[in-house]
Amino acid sequence: MNIAVLGTGSVGQALASKLVALGHTVKIGTRDVAASKGKTRPDGWGNPAIGSWLQANPAVELVTFAEAVSFSDGLIVHAMNGQAAIESLKSSNSKNLDGKILIDITNPLDFSKGMPPTLFVSNTESLAEQIQATFPTLKVVKTLNTMSNPVMVNPSLVPGNHTVFMSGNDTVAKNTVRQLLQSFGWADINIMDLGDISTARGTEMILPLWLRVWGKVQTPFFNFAIHVAQK
Amino acid sequence: MNIAVLGTGSVGQALASKLVALGHTVKIGTRDVAASKGKTRPDGWGNPAIGSWLQANPAVELVTFAEAVSFSDGLIVHAMNGQAAIESLKSSNSKNLDGKILIDITNPLDFSKGMPPTLFVSNTESLAEQIQATFPTLKVVKTLNTMSNPVMVNPSLVPGNHTVFMSGNDTVAKNTVRQLLQSFGWADINIMDLGDISTARGTEMILPLWLRVWGKVQTPFFNFAIHVAQK
Repeated sequence: MNIAVLGTGSVGQALASKLVALGHTVKIGTRDVAASKGKTRPDGWGNPAIGSWLQANPAVELVTFAEAVSFSDGLIVHAMNGQAAIESLKSSNSKNLDGKILIDITNPLDFSKGMPPTLFVSNTESLAEQIQATFPTLKVVKTLNTMSNPVMVNPSLVPGNHTVFMSGNDTVAKNTVRQLLQSFGWADINIMDLGDISTARGTEMILPLWLRVWGKVQTPFFNFAIHVAQK
Repeated sequence: MNIAVLGTGSVGQALASKLVALGHTVKIGTRDVAASKGKTRPDGWGNPAIGSWLQANPAVELVTFAEAVSFSDGLIVHAMNGQAAIESLKSSNSKNLDGKILIDITNPLDFSKGMPPTLFVSNTESLAEQIQATFPTLKVVKTLNTMSNPVMVNPSLVPGNHTVFMSGNDTVAKNTVRQLLQSFGWADINIMDLGDISTARGTEMILPLWLRVWGKVQTPFFNFAIHVAQK
């Protein structure tokens, strides 16, 4: 498929690499193409800047948000900064979003109050719901937002049966995303469809716990699992 | 030990039963002893009312909050309605709380906006932090609040290694609570100390996801586990 990835950080890079490895054609969308290409300094975690990453991944083209969304023939991966999400999607020319699936990986992190980050929307609403309400013809599926990006695209990094959650209003769209997750290596039994898009409140709100667990286990190669008694 | 359990619902009942079975002496505290004793109608989940439960559990005495807290020689289990928590603790005669450990199991659930419940405090604060700030000489340890009450006191109901989190400012108090959890059947490896009391934000905020997973797995006999890659 022709897939748009919106966002140039480590999550967008990880998803783009995986999608290319699976045979898809990927364009990454960004606000300012020239500025992004000029970035070569790794981030605070040692992840490559998008400029360096593109040189190492010549199959992926960096384009504007509008060009990326227009290029997509059905799937758009949303891996942007949460606070920029809705404005960036608006700038992508909303009619190009019609009927497409937005795989929303982004959490509504607010770093303005210091570390650890808080959430700029939570409890009575979620970022996923805000996006869905702003773009009613887009099919928003929240998923993959409860783990580090290496685990998203390579679940076997973590032992045993562990879980990826999924929230969305459109059953057909969720089935498409389920198939994509399976192509990443997620066993069907470990893909938990929680229900409509309002259930994304639950997965976005797990982030404060995720951050504390990360501090405790001292590796990003972990994930939540749901252990259930046999009936 | 002489242990106070504050709260007459199914969580308080489960904890009181387990503590008695382990050889402790337990008094349950409530606002209005006579009114509580008169309750015999099971709740919406089929759990017995406290009046019926007391008849079946004659070893446990029902007393006022103040009498229960005064009876405790070190441990107080907090299993009240979250919205009543601070007022109820104030009514228990605060100086009786001095230096004691409050095992805080209660989540800040707000049912006023319909189902599923939201949280009346979250994100930038937690109920556990509010209690700790209101009663500085009390040693608040948040734990057990991320699972159903049968699993709290019988972790073997759920298969495999699954996790109970713990948050609190006092290391000695957390060690005492860790030993109590071990006496409930929790393996030491499955007790995760997340850090100071502010980390309770993370575990209180997991509840919206817990409720959705409950709806999905259709049994309360489940729990979160953290799967971590071997280093």
